[in-house]
Amino acid sequence: MTTPSRRELANAIRFLAIDGVEAAKSGHPGMPMGMADIAEVLWNDYLRHNPGNPRWPDRDRFMLSNGHGSMLHYALLHLSGYDLSIDEIKRFRQLESKTPGHPENFMTPGVETTTGPLGQGFANSVGFALAEKLLAQRYNRPGFDVVDHRTWVFMGDGCMMEGISHEAASLAGTWGLGKLVAFWDDNGISIDGEVEGWFTDDTPARFEAYGWRVIRNVDGHDPHEIRIAIETALKHDDKPTLVCCRTTIGFGSPAKAGKESSHGAPLGKDEVEATRKALDWPHGPFEVPPAIADAWRANDAGATREAEWNALFEAYAAAHPELATELRRRLRGELPADFSSQADAYIAKLQTEGPVVASRKASQMAIEAFAPLLPELIGGSADLAHSNLTLWKGSQPVTGGSAEANYINYGVREFAMTAIANALSMHCGFIPYDATFLVFSDYARNAVRMSALMRSHAIHVYTHDSIGLGEDGPTHQPVEHLASLRYIPNNDVWRPCDAVESAVAWKSAIERMDGPACLVFSRQNLQHQPRDEQQVRDIARGGYVLKDSVGAPELVLIATGSEVELATKAAEQLGDKVRVVSMPSTTVFDRQDAAYRESVLPNAVRKRIAVEAGVTGFWRQYVGLDGAVIGIDTFGASAPAGELYKHFGITVDAVVEAARAL
Amino acid sequence: MTTPSRRELANAIRFLAIDGVEAAKSGHPGMPMGMADIAEVLWNDYLRHNPGNPRWPDRDRFMLSNGHGSMLHYALLHLSGYDLSIDEIKRFRQLESKTPGHPENFMTPGVETTTGPLGQGFANSVGFALAEKLLAQRYNRPGFDVVDHRTWVFMGDGCMMEGISHEAASLAGTWGLGKLVAFWDDNGISIDGEVEGWFTDDTPARFEAYGWRVIRNVDGHDPHEIRIAIETALKHDDKPTLVCCRTTIGFGSPAKAGKESSHGAPLGKDEVEATRKALDWPHGPFEVPPAIADAWRANDAGATREAEWNALFEAYAAAHPELATELRRRLRGELPADFSSQADAYIAKLQTEGPVVASRKASQMAIEAFAPLLPELIGGSADLAHSNLTLWKGSQPVTGGSAEANYINYGVREFAMTAIANALSMHCGFIPYDATFLVFSDYARNAVRMSALMRSHAIHVYTHDSIGLGEDGPTHQPVEHLASLRYIPNNDVWRPCDAVESAVAWKSAIERMDGPACLVFSRQNLQHQPRDEQQVRDIARGGYVLKDSVGAPELVLIATGSEVELATKAAEQLGDKVRVVSMPSTTVFDRQDAAYRESVLPNAVRKRIAVEAGVTGFWRQYVGLDGAVIGIDTFGASAPAGELYKHFGITVDAVVEAARAL
Repeated sequence: MTTPSRRELANAIRFLAIDGVEAAKSGHPGMPMGMADIAEVLWNDYLRHNPGNPRWPDRDRFMLSNGHGSMLHYALLHLSGYDLSIDEIKRFRQLESKTPGHPENFMTPGVETTTGPLGQGFANSVGFALAEKLLAQRYNRPGFDVVDHRTWVFMGDGCMMEGISHEAASLAGTWGLGKLVAFWDDNGISIDGEVEGWFTDDTPARFEAYGWRVIRNVDGHDPHEIRIAIETALKHDDKPTLVCCRTTIGFGSPAKAGKESSHGAPLGKDEVEATRKALDWPHGPFEVPPAIADAWRANDAGATREAEWNALFEAYAAAHPELATELRRRLRGELPADFSSQADAYIAKLQTEGPVVASRKASQMAIEAFAPLLPELIGGSADLAHSNLTLWKGSQPVTGGSAEANYINYGVREFAMTAIANALSMHCGFIPYDATFLVFSDYARNAVRMSALMRSHAIHVYTHDSIGLGEDGPTHQPVEHLASLRYIPNNDVWRPCDAVESAVAWKSAIERMDGPACLVFSRQNLQHQPRDEQQVRDIARGGYVLKDSVGAPELVLIATGSEVELATKAAEQLGDKVRVVSMPSTTVFDRQDAAYRESVLPNAVRKRIAVEAGVTGFWRQYVGLDGAVIGIDTFGASAPAGELYKHFGITVDAVVEAARAL
Repeated sequence: MTTPSRRELANAIRFLAIDGVEAAKSGHPGMPMGMADIAEVLWNDYLRHNPGNPRWPDRDRFMLSNGHGSMLHYALLHLSGYDLSIDEIKRFRQLESKTPGHPENFMTPGVETTTGPLGQGFANSVGFALAEKLLAQRYNRPGFDVVDHRTWVFMGDGCMMEGISHEAASLAGTWGLGKLVAFWDDNGISIDGEVEGWFTDDTPARFEAYGWRVIRNVDGHDPHEIRIAIETALKHDDKPTLVCCRTTIGFGSPAKAGKESSHGAPLGKDEVEATRKALDWPHGPFEVPPAIADAWRANDAGATREAEWNALFEAYAAAHPELATELRRRLRGELPADFSSQADAYIAKLQTEGPVVASRKASQMAIEAFAPLLPELIGGSADLAHSNLTLWKGSQPVTGGSAEANYINYGVREFAMTAIANALSMHCGFIPYDATFLVFSDYARNAVRMSALMRSHAIHVYTHDSIGLGEDGPTHQPVEHLASLRYIPNNDVWRPCDAVESAVAWKSAIERMDGPACLVFSRQNLQHQPRDEQQVRDIARGGYVLKDSVGAPELVLIATGSEVELATKAAEQLGDKVRVVSMPSTTVFDRQDAAYRESVLPNAVRKRIAVEAGVTGFWRQYVGLDGAVIGIDTFGASAPAGELYKHFGITVDAVVEAARAL
């Protein structure tokens, strides 16, 4: 057999996608068929990776923002030699296969991020490229470009329509992310059909308005044109590049090419056969001829690349041992060995000193205490730095080019902020924290969900956590948000009651390696609570007895955040048979063993009252049908905070009355 | 006193804002001070309104997308003669005043929409302008332009940064909304400071890329330049117009003009005095000299305008009585007199016929049945029409220019879609329904909240409601979404179990006049459930006994949607002491009187099991600590739906086992 043509190499992708979707009886063949030629050129000629080690730190990052085309990625991984066998390709979309319906970073070696929710993969790519830039700025030294890789992202019309594309592209332009290259699959088709009726943007002009280099009118099926575009992108490092590729969705299918019908369903047996003929691909399902398979395999080249980098890194480590040690630690996602003990010392000191501050201020104090220990900590806020209190003394903006850059002014872009934070975490080397008002977590909602699904180590700081926000009124007052965030699987939510709990929440979030945390803080000052050493330790269990009854409790008051103070005051009025439980994190508490949970909330004690300035229904899982909940089930109102608490009946008196009525 | 100068007129706004914020001890003086000159020209020279009747249907619509500048709007309303007294201005941001921290449509006469969450007011303005265009297309006749008004919106840098600005501007361009004029307050300042570090877009070029007419470099403090810009906008009707106004935030304040410090806090007593001097405004707090007050009052002109329109409308009614009757009914928000009975007849027929279909299909059948009765019903989907099943036989796209246009291809823009639907409802004349997959309600989350807060009559259709979605995997499978949507105050959520409940859900959503509804439907087929007439009637109460026990129940099974079938099958195995409650809408059920709720869920019966393919914690408020919940508290997975139900243990066997373990 002669050397395979580029088209044949691309067709190997097309037919793995076609056959995978056909076997699964569901999936999206149109995009892989349309973008196969682009992917072939990129992967065979430009992508710097090592299929034998998907975690090689200096690999190029590649991701599909149009994640429904997952079979494209799986085909590329399989063909180039990743640990993704043809059997996995055959098990596309089956339970526990490595080839789920959309790319999932935690299922498949070589998948960098989880995509499918449109536009977020693109925003992730901006975060990956920023991570590279910041690590390079900090750690590279003359002759030692130990951090030097590119980020490549595929995106479709759907990604372009989503608002997050605006937020992310704008930031990438401002940051001048010259090593980011996005390929727009301009196929003129979205699920509802030909896009003229709903997508008439001049997208190249839009991206130029963001400060991108835009390469227009590339024939996405012509390897030569694709190469020229990529070469142009590689020539410059000052701006991100958008390559606008005209493609045909479902390329090669006689009846479905260029049509919506190729997008989201198997081609069907007859059309698969017709496509085999049209593309001159006489091979059986899932069959890749040896010459084509050989041409695709990139293991040797990849191993060589990584070996070269290892040698470079060793020389770097010899020349710059401290930098190398720190960089290696960061890339491994390990905390400094003394972090935990230093954090505990800070927490113990706080317990002794007992500052009375807003928990948002306590959060800033915790950042101030922990950030000097953690060069990987990178902060930011969606234009609310002075309200969220996310700046600390060592904060350096990423726009200044400083090697110490560790703070991102995201502007008013909550959704891209959160997706970028996810990416900073997925890239490795960073523990990102982002911030906005709690109510505007709504704007980032699906990216918060993706944090949890991807098991990212992102920390979301949400201040102004209730009607305690006051005069800004119901548009700014969260009511349902605490409950809603807690219901996102694998998402830890903390709402601390004082400076000590705030510091523990921060420590917990920093030490949590398999998922994100939302840290929810008050605008208003909160009293300090007395605790003994065991109580201080138990904060980390999410819920604990803050003030116990004399003898067995007859009534348990459960509260979080600013309402813990109400509960303790009510307990004083209610006598010594009352236990007060502080529950800064229900999600963490629910993970404790049954014995611990029983020790805090004894099953036999059914007189229970929960107090939280949020929806009441959530708390029924802790107080049952016979308990009571003091909270708020309507929208808030515009007025000073103290008046609102009275108006909505979240008061010591209300707790006392509810207790007496039980 | 001589005729006041334009600057003096504008200063009246400035000082009402300054004094209002000062008295409230909180608020945002910077924006009103910066945009006062623009507002003065627009309101005094161009705005067609009648302060005496804020509900005059053909009034121009005006809104602040940068809603934190609410005092600008309140000053305009007060000065021009709306029912907003100086006492209300003095009570800015106080409990139950008509002048809350951000503009709220339900609190203040003359406020069209609720703003504050940035970018959404701008998206609303696109919806208002679309509403006008569609009503004009349908009802105007030669010589009778009975629908002929403009939409004016103010927006700030924050609105511009938000992703929703991209989605909404793109649609406005595609739709050619020539009567929409947006004023961009280009003051170079956002909360974190001077925007160069995080906002470097070429915004005029961006809007040109969307097909807008862009008027650049307008001095926002020069009435002459502002007039020229508005005249230019008025001259053309083919494209929406963006007027780019360079302004100084906090204009007039010697120490704070042009600075972030004027944005979100009172100027302070000394600076207020300095500003009075600088702007030559010697009047006391809240004092508007008579000549200036007189020049502002627009009541007479407004009454004349409305009288002219009334005369026009009477002539129109004489010439086109049927059109006039229908338009009047729509603008009043009244349903056709026979809607309820026709809907009931359809529901009764469904109960008899018992179709076995996916509830998304049942939803389409309901649309098909109800839409011919309701010309005000306007549908749409975020590029998922054929999955959401939102098209019906009479659907006509809004892009075709048809007088019957009633369907919006929103593209992949869930957030703008929802904000636009809110606006279609707030404008009057429409009952909008929008649609996406349930999981992507996340992308629109804050606009769904705003639907509920604004009491809009928007209907949100969410299909693919659980792991029943199957192979697309966890990125596409909602888990926490039902609970999270139910916790939004004033938001009705329906998850019907068959075609009959689906039709009742639609009827309920259409007849609900004081809030939105989320209608949640399955991808997969659902069995038909037998019911007598009383049971059919009780569906509208949100929860009802679908299958009762013989004698008093010993066990109650509660289920929704696709899981009702599991509950009825489990009940068959568990004997005749089991009651099955179908609970399509917990939010509606919770509003029923205590006696009805007790009749469905007797307090004495504590053996209760809830079954829903979503988070379990939510259901504890119905089953208590001693009941059980069959659901899912982790993310889903990619596999065929049937396998997933087994894998995650949501089965008849699981219900039976749980019952036996109680």
